[in-house]
Amino acid sequence: MKNRVLTTLLSFLLISLCSTSVYAADDERAQKAIETRQGLLKVVGHYFGPIVGMAQGKVPFDAAMARTNANKIAQLMPMIPDVFALDTRANGLESDTLDGVWENNDDFNSKAAIATERALALAAAADQGKGAFGKAVGAMGSACKSCHEDYRQK
Amino acid sequence: MKNRVLTTLLSFLLISLCSTSVYAADDERAQKAIETRQGLLKVVGHYFGPIVGMAQGKVPFDAAMARTNANKIAQLMPMIPDVFALDTRANGLESDTLDGVWENNDDFNSKAAIATERALALAAAADQGKGAFGKAVGAMGSACKSCHEDYRQK
Repeated sequence: MKNRVLTTLLSFLLISLCSTSVYAADDERAQKAIETRQGLLKVVGHYFGPIVGMAQGKVPFDAAMARTNANKIAQLMPMIPDVFALDTRANGLESDTLDGVWENNDDFNSKAAIATERALALAAAADQGKGAFGKAVGAMGSACKSCHEDYRQK
Repeated sequence: MKNRVLTTLLSFLLISLCSTSVYAADDERAQKAIETRQGLLKVVGHYFGPIVGMAQGKVPFDAAMARTNANKIAQLMPMIPDVFALDTRANGLESDTLDGVWENNDDFNSKAAIATERALALAAAADQGKGAFGKAVGAMGSACKSCHEDYRQK
């Protein structure tokens, strides 16, 4: 009898230890995913910042830099579906991502595809004069905003 | 006399206020740069992780995924010189980046170029059997390690 109680207690202890470590590993993976998606969008900001500055006249217009940066954004945008693939809703970790990313995943991913097209159009517009460039910057900004409104908190 | 003292005091106050805000803006910019470069390398890790897992036999080999991920890494590597361009040495902010990045910037950037070539070779090797793939993963890992040894703390 004493042995059976001990075995039961040990089993409970082992199960609870194992499930804690499974949860910890899962949370760690989710935290890494959150930091990776935030990281990707920081790199996007690095390339989009000077373009916005040029459009606003705060930075001297530089067609070559605008084209280069827009092409980098066009490479980064298709990475959005990849880094947002892991559904981190259940982990309850701090994040600005709204549940819709996984509830309406096709729409989320299609917004990333639209943003890619806009970035390529922006790269092409860099050599088409300030008017076309300004318009393309606006279209790129709208693509960003449209996704942020639906899928980002704040 | 009293007025002159007051004017001098006010000037000091203004100068110190302005320089504080200049420093604050400069630190904020540096902090953003640090987070952006860390972010970029997290995205690299996102794509390299499964490749390493495949090479180690921990993840089933998937040639298409290996090729896709290696091509993403080949797009990300040339962004390294861009996101590390801002010299943040003077800001004294927490970062794993060693001073050599800016002291030997040409070497640092050439290591990023080598890593890009290795990523493209890895993408090509994905369809050349496990032997070639494993060798290419090793070469990619060496390129990463070579840069980390010289330019990353720890």
